[in-house]
Amino acid sequence: MSEKFVETKFYKMPQGELLNLESGLFLSSLTIAYETHGSLNKDKTNVILLCHALSGDAHVAGYHVADDKPGWWAPMVGPGKAFDTEKYFIICSNVIGSCKGSSGPNSINPETGKPFGLSFPIVTVKDMVNAQKKLLDFLGIKKILSVAGGSMGGMQVLQWVKEYPEMIMSAIPIATTYKHFAQQIAFNEVGRQAIMADPAWNNGDYYGKEAPSRGLAVARMIGHITYMSSESMDAKFGRSLKNKELGYEFATEFEIEGYLGYRGDSFVKRFDANSYLYITKAMDYFDIQKDKNLIDVFKGVSSRFLIITFSSDWLYTPAQNKELVRALKMNGIDVTYCEIGSSYGHDAFLIEFDEQTKLIKHFLEKTFKTL
Amino acid sequence: MSEKFVETKFYKMPQGELLNLESGLFLSSLTIAYETHGSLNKDKTNVILLCHALSGDAHVAGYHVADDKPGWWAPMVGPGKAFDTEKYFIICSNVIGSCKGSSGPNSINPETGKPFGLSFPIVTVKDMVNAQKKLLDFLGIKKILSVAGGSMGGMQVLQWVKEYPEMIMSAIPIATTYKHFAQQIAFNEVGRQAIMADPAWNNGDYYGKEAPSRGLAVARMIGHITYMSSESMDAKFGRSLKNKELGYEFATEFEIEGYLGYRGDSFVKRFDANSYLYITKAMDYFDIQKDKNLIDVFKGVSSRFLIITFSSDWLYTPAQNKELVRALKMNGIDVTYCEIGSSYGHDAFLIEFDEQTKLIKHFLEKTFKTL
Repeated sequence: MSEKFVETKFYKMPQGELLNLESGLFLSSLTIAYETHGSLNKDKTNVILLCHALSGDAHVAGYHVADDKPGWWAPMVGPGKAFDTEKYFIICSNVIGSCKGSSGPNSINPETGKPFGLSFPIVTVKDMVNAQKKLLDFLGIKKILSVAGGSMGGMQVLQWVKEYPEMIMSAIPIATTYKHFAQQIAFNEVGRQAIMADPAWNNGDYYGKEAPSRGLAVARMIGHITYMSSESMDAKFGRSLKNKELGYEFATEFEIEGYLGYRGDSFVKRFDANSYLYITKAMDYFDIQKDKNLIDVFKGVSSRFLIITFSSDWLYTPAQNKELVRALKMNGIDVTYCEIGSSYGHDAFLIEFDEQTKLIKHFLEKTFKTL
Repeated sequence: MSEKFVETKFYKMPQGELLNLESGLFLSSLTIAYETHGSLNKDKTNVILLCHALSGDAHVAGYHVADDKPGWWAPMVGPGKAFDTEKYFIICSNVIGSCKGSSGPNSINPETGKPFGLSFPIVTVKDMVNAQKKLLDFLGIKKILSVAGGSMGGMQVLQWVKEYPEMIMSAIPIATTYKHFAQQIAFNEVGRQAIMADPAWNNGDYYGKEAPSRGLAVARMIGHITYMSSESMDAKFGRSLKNKELGYEFATEFEIEGYLGYRGDSFVKRFDANSYLYITKAMDYFDIQKDKNLIDVFKGVSSRFLIITFSSDWLYTPAQNKELVRALKMNGIDVTYCEIGSSYGHDAFLIEFDEQTKLIKHFLEKTFKTL
């Protein structure tokens, strides 16, 4: 490990300020956990904002002291990597609604001294972006060379372009969608129902007591099925058994069952069930188009785009992204679209580093040159 | 309603007989609920066996007295229909493990006088077929003109051909698979976990008490997502809201959420959670191939095949069925394969009646003529 240790920092919104939310409500206290990698140049023109997915956090790369696992996109962020920390100043912040340091349902409500639980207001992807904007204002950053992210991170990318087009030189939405379609809402809703069906959930009021772990584990298992492709599941597990012979019992018998169980159980140790509700809801609300024609959404936008999809991603499909490409092109926007051939399904953005690196590196260099 | 009322009949295995199961265990008492439509001809050569899917039952067509809903495949079974009751003698029986009249976990264990619950032995698709075979023996039927069914019904079709090739003149597997692949097991397993996570499940011992309804509802919701295509969900629901405006709350907001909730809630009124565990497990065990080459499985088979798939069925895909077609053809078996263009996903076998009717009617007539 030649890379330096990184530390999560915390931005606190000054007292008196508010974060207005799409719902009409507001947050009067706001904390944002964030990390930075690399150095800001004198002109502040080398800023890259990385946005994380549903279960991600601010810890995008490098190591925390006393931790043997690097950040969630470590192979993509570092010296000489796709997001080259010798050239660029990388910022990654935890979304609001999460449980990884930024304000969310497990934060202490200053008015009661207790965790918010369900009294935390519903947040949207637009709210997440506006919270990040407060952090950038605090850091004195007025231009973003590129905003990039996969899955829900990609939704934030699109929202950034829509809200602050003049700030964004370029955008890299990866394995994402311009709105949540019915099937995507359906999968999230079933996950939420699994959590809310757990008696330990107790209407969100379980902090300091038993957490709704079984419900959250089921929700995560559903999620995992959508993150893999049928093909990759088959290649990895097929019909392999945990033991030599079938036991004819309801215990875990197939490898795939064991894998899902393991994924579910390990998730509940690191994630809060209420945050799962809040963040999936934010994704379901996501619709960059709303009642508009998709083409009109991007009127006046001049940010360059690199859109990356994966051939076997059946959650956020290449087909959905091609509609986005078309809408951008109809606005004369400079768009590069690349569908990477991969059998890894949606998870590919966390696996297929070589091709992503080549595409992104080149795209960022070209963008930087146009400054 | 010009059609006659039908009545469910019950076959009871004679005392002293056993139904040996694939697990090595056996059932010493066995009831099979079944219905017949049409009349058996003198030579007993006009028998069609219809096999139902996961949540189906023996009530395939016509009306029960005092019931305003016809059987589950009513548009396909009746005078002049695909399975023409003026020509053929139709038998449909409820699978063992179910809760619709045949022996299953909610049956009374004669040894204890209480419902079996989890002490009911695990059953497989082969066991279901062997139970049906007892019924056919009882009815004195030695030849089956055709065995047909969709989804898990199609698995029984393939198993019938494998177990009793000499009895089966023809087979019509619809919207099915020759084995459960990892993703199919994964969806079932998550459903089972949702049920078993419900404290009311109580290790299967809940009869006479509160049933694990919330867990079963979640399981059914997951199932429903896999029964529809993303396209049909989008056409039917899209991002439509139940109310005019977003409420920014965890209550049902999108139409698709309401639909899934409704499907879940109505299912728990008519289905037993333990049966859901047993039957999904039987499906997961289904693997007509086992350790064999798929081609070798069908050696010596001379039954004619009509295999029907639906273009948007992503649960049991056309691609999987083409592997089956190939294996049959390599044995010189007479196979007609038809992929019906439909946006309805897996559910299409319960929706697309016109094309299925044409295909099946013609296929049955031709089979009947070869006698």
